Amino acid sequence: MPRRIDNAALRDRLMSAADAAALIMPGDTVAMSGFTGAGYPKAVPLALAARMEVAHAAGEAFRIKLLTGASTAPELDGALAKVGGMELRLPYQSDPATRARINAGEMEYIDLHLSHVAQFAWFGFFGDIDVAVVEVAGILEDGRLVPSTSVGNNKTWLEQAGKVILEVNRRQSAGLEGMHDIYYGTALPPHRLPIPLLKPDDRIGEAYLRCDPDKVIAVVETDAPDRNTHFAAPDATSEAIAGHLLEFLAHEVKRGRLTPQLLPLQSGVGNVANAVLSGLAAGGYRDLTAFTEVIQDGMLGLIKQGVLRMASATSFSLSPAGIAEFDAHVEFYRQRIVLRPQEISNHPELIRRLGCIALNGMIEADIYGNVNSTHIAGGRIMNGIGGSGDFARNSYLSVFMAPSTAKDGAVSAIVPMASHVDHTEHDTMVVVTEQGLADLRGLSPKQRAQVVIERCAHPEFRPQLQDYFDRACRDGYGGHTPHLLGEALSWHQRFIETGSMQVAR
Amino acid sequence: MPRRIDNAALRDRLMSAADAAALIMPGDTVAMSGFTGAGYPKAVPLALAARMEVAHAAGEAFRIKLLTGASTAPELDGALAKVGGMELRLPYQSDPATRARINAGEMEYIDLHLSHVAQFAWFGFFGDIDVAVVEVAGILEDGRLVPSTSVGNNKTWLEQAGKVILEVNRRQSAGLEGMHDIYYGTALPPHRLPIPLLKPDDRIGEAYLRCDPDKVIAVVETDAPDRNTHFAAPDATSEAIAGHLLEFLAHEVKRGRLTPQLLPLQSGVGNVANAVLSGLAAGGYRDLTAFTEVIQDGMLGLIKQGVLRMASATSFSLSPAGIAEFDAHVEFYRQRIVLRPQEISNHPELIRRLGCIALNGMIEADIYGNVNSTHIAGGRIMNGIGGSGDFARNSYLSVFMAPSTAKDGAVSAIVPMASHVDHTEHDTMVVVTEQGLADLRGLSPKQRAQVVIERCAHPEFRPQLQDYFDRACRDGYGGHTPHLLGEALSWHQRFIETGSMQVAR
Repeated sequence: MPRRIDNAALRDRLMSAADAAALIMPGDTVAMSGFTGAGYPKAVPLALAARMEVAHAAGEAFRIKLLTGASTAPELDGALAKVGGMELRLPYQSDPATRARINAGEMEYIDLHLSHVAQFAWFGFFGDIDVAVVEVAGILEDGRLVPSTSVGNNKTWLEQAGKVILEVNRRQSAGLEGMHDIYYGTALPPHRLPIPLLKPDDRIGEAYLRCDPDKVIAVVETDAPDRNTHFAAPDATSEAIAGHLLEFLAHEVKRGRLTPQLLPLQSGVGNVANAVLSGLAAGGYRDLTAFTEVIQDGMLGLIKQGVLRMASATSFSLSPAGIAEFDAHVEFYRQRIVLRPQEISNHPELIRRLGCIALNGMIEADIYGNVNSTHIAGGRIMNGIGGSGDFARNSYLSVFMAPSTAKDGAVSAIVPMASHVDHTEHDTMVVVTEQGLADLRGLSPKQRAQVVIERCAHPEFRPQLQDYFDRACRDGYGGHTPHLLGEALSWHQRFIETGSMQVAR
Repeated sequence: MPRRIDNAALRDRLMSAADAAALIMPGDTVAMSGFTGAGYPKAVPLALAARMEVAHAAGEAFRIKLLTGASTAPELDGALAKVGGMELRLPYQSDPATRARINAGEMEYIDLHLSHVAQFAWFGFFGDIDVAVVEVAGILEDGRLVPSTSVGNNKTWLEQAGKVILEVNRRQSAGLEGMHDIYYGTALPPHRLPIPLLKPDDRIGEAYLRCDPDKVIAVVETDAPDRNTHFAAPDATSEAIAGHLLEFLAHEVKRGRLTPQLLPLQSGVGNVANAVLSGLAAGGYRDLTAFTEVIQDGMLGLIKQGVLRMASATSFSLSPAGIAEFDAHVEFYRQRIVLRPQEISNHPELIRRLGCIALNGMIEADIYGNVNSTHIAGGRIMNGIGGSGDFARNSYLSVFMAPSTAKDGAVSAIVPMASHVDHTEHDTMVVVTEQGLADLRGLSPKQRAQVVIERCAHPEFRPQLQDYFDRACRDGYGGHTPHLLGEALSWHQRFIETGSMQVAR
């Protein structure tokens, strides 16, 4: 097995995860790698959690502020949440233990647009970053770093942190080397320049992360897989959602508003996304591109089939089978995949220039097209907004998708008023459920309401929505966005009280 | 008086406003010039309204769909609203008669980000544009047009409309010629390129609007002033808001997060904006720049004093005194003011690159930092979102300002839950009222709530807000963004029922 650490000075800083974790102090702001369960540090956070547990048992406070790219894994968020080791977390998480802590009010969480995180760090909005803990796939002789399976905010963390701890994970494919494109042309205003990316394929940076070796206080070797996201075959609901969307895209091509190559696709992860990707293959599309955040199993398949010509992202999110496929054909995929920092993958300038087709999930949409991506019943955070706002605001098309009901039909994804708004009426173009698709472009609020109710709502909830809308139009305070404020959130309140939005019969 | 129409072919198409208006048909989609009461057509819309009135009296339907840059004036929106002549209006309006029609449910209104309008027209999202009616300051011999006091979407309207009606307004200063910068480098994706603007001063286009003379079906001469916006001296509340903001900016300079030249300013119009501008002068600032939508009286003064080195915008909004000042020194101002299309003045790519300081008014903010810029009590539209979303999302700093109360203290601008959300918690950095300033950067929702209540709420409403927040933290469904959904909108409901958010005592 070839060695992964070719720089002599950094090899001298090899130590155990426990020793490295001992260099992180209570109250530190710690920036870690990791995006969608890929490329996160796998040993130091566990060792840090163990250290915290000892401290807490001795009655000592030991919590950190934790910044990452996006979601990580049980060995990171999970371990730190379990011991109550985070006082603050940003910008995105999907860990059950962390979510429980946040919703219990036991820790602070800041939900940010993913494109904002790096620049806010540079602006000084998060204060000093004490330590960066970054997983890499290798270290070159000259000290440059081979990025791992996600880039996220690593460029910024390595530059902004006072001290750096590197985890070198030999489990990551050596073939990752050369797949990344790290753009070093960002600056603080007023010194910013146009970002010279004209198509998803363009390489505008370097294949390696730079790192001042003098800041590296520890190097830890690991040999562990990324979080395994098992690939779930799309169910009938996801297939139906995908079907409506694919019919819509075909219609747009027919109308001449899109070419058969479409425009660069941004796609969330999960069942519905997988069904859409499968549908693109079945629909005979060829030579598409993706300008997105995450490469999932479905995309590997599309690249292999030539449906996708190439994909740009900031992270992988693969199943064990997907990882095996990737590792076996890494030369092939390296020609067709580019991993970038998330400030570039999600940059408003680039998303608008490229004219992406943004496909994102949602928790709920209201009849007027306001979308809630983050909160259950207005108060409980799920995961965070992620990049959905970056893409929805700036794309050529912004599509939000969800099954029309959740919790075995007890909850409607189409509600009178969204209990939290992440994407405003100004940012939502298309809403899709398994019931149908509502094209909201060029429609006023009341026109939107009518198509959302008719096309997207589940039949079980449709009459109640229509009744609300009719009465709001008749009795509401304003005729532009008619609402009955006394009952606009009553569906959610009923859910909180009874576990169901259904009126008891 | 020099003639304004130097092109012979277009001179041949001179006709009366009534004859020109007769070329507009019922059901047409009509795109007109106009932004903040400047540069709108002043004769044809009045003639069109008269025609509609005759048709309506004869029992004939005659309505159009009307697209503009932003708000216009009584001679345009007012006249058409009075006769019920609009079936659809976008993207922004501030006319009382139009607002009344919209809120009565008698016409449709679509509220869009101003940076989205031109591209949505190009994308075909509004359907075909039948006629453009555009005011210009003159026509060159070769047929190019000297733009008027606003640019707005005129470039797009002239290119996209099937037929063009020009109003040549000799009242506009001949010295406007050369002040504009019309960028012709936009394209549809996937053919878009970086917009080569690096600082607010840069001229990247042409001083004239292009127009295919074969499309021009009528030319109408006018001699009429823009809507007069009388300059109101800032009151004590505005002065207090400005004072808090200026103290904050000084603090940011002291902390090294801003230089004494700050960053390009975007500023809404009105009392508070004027007070902020005055404060910048009093604060000793020099050599600032503005990258904004509207040049108002205060900015002329700052340019004259050297406080502002230059200003980029898409429109003027001047008082009669301001117009006189501008006309008297047009050579001086032409060196220091650039008027651009609104897709450029409001372009996310440019706002993020330049790192603007965005200063916008609001109707209300909730304790968690969600901002409502458009709706009274969730249902009634005021004017529209305008460019506030373009700037808030992409700027270095996004600030929202309002007096802490309205309607003689009956209404609080700080509420438990915003009754409509235009700017999400992810997009609001600073909230200011005359009570104080809340810096929300780097704060979680609950931390934000505490500073917004303490710093921004009026003392009359503060205890109720604190009580709501405390009970929501204790009894709410989720601990991340604690709400009591049964009463989250009760303040607005009380306002609807009683005219006041105050609990009766």
